[in-house]
Amino acid sequence: MKQNTYAVIMAGGIGSRFWPMSTAEHPKQFLDILGTGKTLIQQTVERFKNIVPSENILIVTNVQYKNLVLEQLPQLKEDQVLCEPARRNTAPCIAYAAYKIKKENPEATMVVAPSDHLILDQAEFDRIIDIALNEAKQEQQLVTLGIKPSRPDTGYGYIQFIDDTTSHLPEVKKVKTFTEKPILSIAKEFLTSGDFYWNSGIFIWSAQSIVKEIEIQIPDLASLFEESLPALSTENEAKKMAQIYVQCPNISIDFGVMEKAKKVKVVLADFGWSDLGTWGSLYTHLDKDEHKNATLGKKAFLYDSSNCIVNLPNDKLAVIQGLNDYIIVESDGVLLVCKKDDEQKIKQYVTDLKTRKVLS
Amino acid sequence: MKQNTYAVIMAGGIGSRFWPMSTAEHPKQFLDILGTGKTLIQQTVERFKNIVPSENILIVTNVQYKNLVLEQLPQLKEDQVLCEPARRNTAPCIAYAAYKIKKENPEATMVVAPSDHLILDQAEFDRIIDIALNEAKQEQQLVTLGIKPSRPDTGYGYIQFIDDTTSHLPEVKKVKTFTEKPILSIAKEFLTSGDFYWNSGIFIWSAQSIVKEIEIQIPDLASLFEESLPALSTENEAKKMAQIYVQCPNISIDFGVMEKAKKVKVVLADFGWSDLGTWGSLYTHLDKDEHKNATLGKKAFLYDSSNCIVNLPNDKLAVIQGLNDYIIVESDGVLLVCKKDDEQKIKQYVTDLKTRKVLS
Repeated sequence: MKQNTYAVIMAGGIGSRFWPMSTAEHPKQFLDILGTGKTLIQQTVERFKNIVPSENILIVTNVQYKNLVLEQLPQLKEDQVLCEPARRNTAPCIAYAAYKIKKENPEATMVVAPSDHLILDQAEFDRIIDIALNEAKQEQQLVTLGIKPSRPDTGYGYIQFIDDTTSHLPEVKKVKTFTEKPILSIAKEFLTSGDFYWNSGIFIWSAQSIVKEIEIQIPDLASLFEESLPALSTENEAKKMAQIYVQCPNISIDFGVMEKAKKVKVVLADFGWSDLGTWGSLYTHLDKDEHKNATLGKKAFLYDSSNCIVNLPNDKLAVIQGLNDYIIVESDGVLLVCKKDDEQKIKQYVTDLKTRKVLS
Repeated sequence: MKQNTYAVIMAGGIGSRFWPMSTAEHPKQFLDILGTGKTLIQQTVERFKNIVPSENILIVTNVQYKNLVLEQLPQLKEDQVLCEPARRNTAPCIAYAAYKIKKENPEATMVVAPSDHLILDQAEFDRIIDIALNEAKQEQQLVTLGIKPSRPDTGYGYIQFIDDTTSHLPEVKKVKTFTEKPILSIAKEFLTSGDFYWNSGIFIWSAQSIVKEIEIQIPDLASLFEESLPALSTENEAKKMAQIYVQCPNISIDFGVMEKAKKVKVVLADFGWSDLGTWGSLYTHLDKDEHKNATLGKKAFLYDSSNCIVNLPNDKLAVIQGLNDYIIVESDGVLLVCKKDDEQKIKQYVTDLKTRKVLS
């Protein structure tokens, strides 16, 4: 357990791909989407229990989710929840946490992680984070975790790496390039080559290093938080954030910092990771019956059906017949039936319903 | 309008094929299954408005539906609802009405009709009933309506007819045989031959004739009602029925009387009839959009779907994608998704749910 180590958990997403389970009012990270009895953010916080002291866990989220966070994580104090007054991608989110942590503890090192991912092998996660924290001690060093790809997924960014002569550990590599989501043929080449790993969105660095790097790469953002420094961790913090957040550039940490930074390492990981970003990836991690149906819902009865994801409230009586490869979900009284292959259309249906004013 | 004519509407069915819309607590005849604004029993009663005086309409139903009947048909007095204390097919139901009517009016003629059928051409119905009532004047004459078959349906009984030399009307025929539900090849032959019509379950006869015929064909049943005669239309009626009904044979009027009776005529009808006995037959009569989807439910949105029957509550928000030829129904919070071709399995699913004790 490291007193100078902090976990920053990003929990501001709205998870629109999992509609109607995930809604803007109650997004994916606050759901027990796997039916384990714990929500994704609860699992994420628990993941850090051997890594950082409980008081060093910070949740950055939209102000509208503050109460949800405190309800689901009663062990946290109110000042461990950093509230964003506007939606602004990951760079402002990370800047907020970094400036605040640096002010409180100039020696701090941070692990930044999304709140809605799945990691199966906790011991391996602990080991990899330990390696990464060690690398992050080097001056001005940024570290990211790369995930060993298991398929040519076109939904992820990839990190190309080269050997790092300064480390004797096989997991530690230098980043050569970050690539955007590739087309399938390129993704297949990445996989074959063996020197591309998935970009996990998990970062490890000292507060000093990332603040310095933000100053270099996104000076506009840096000056807003520099100006806010006196207000951070005081009673004026919320007011100040309300004032500066709307001026923050809407930019990701990958695009804004990582792709341009000079000293970026990647630690290669293989700890059973999924971003649970699609119904398909969720399906992979759910228990399935002999017909390959993954069913959550105690009164959901399937007949002549296979390869379906069914997620219904436990008190919802349903007979599902003759469906193969479908998503059947009901949440808050809203029903979705959709082919698994067409799940990317769900976002557009939600937009359509909003246009028709049946959804707000 | 005929003062001596009575309409007897049979409303005791439990409509299990339309689960979950139709349930034992609220069966099909009490539903606005076509979305017209009127339930099937309301439509059925209205159908007789030019045929019999309102006070000559009797509803025979299970005692558990008495209040439902009176709610949906507030124009009826309580004594127009004949309550069956047990489920016993159509022969006891018709005997009950016939003995009661004959006691009140020995000159009465009755039209017996199911409460859950659809008839589109009201004027033609009026005309056919008029012909049938005229035939029913003959002593000991039973009359049934035959429906011109439009397809080799294996879900109906058929009536084979021969010419009736005593009538100059082309619609009036003598019944040669009643046949059970045929297999498809036989049904096709019936259709080709031209002398088989569907058995509609609508009967016309004098109270005298049917009582006489029940005495001959089902003497056990006759003696139970003969014994009950003093109690009928008195304050003792319900008590008496509770006593005798359990002893009544469970037998249909077709099997118990019609198939054995000597003088049976069939009046050939073609007035846009459906027994709405299956989702398929219901689908035929619903308005459909350009993708042939029949949708009831103001917040049901279909994408990439065709030939579906969707019946959801008006306040139920649903996105249905990628379904072709499916039934999607929710009623009282219970959801059914089923291939149209497999609708005959619905009964068995209901049985299964009862076995699993998730449905009572």
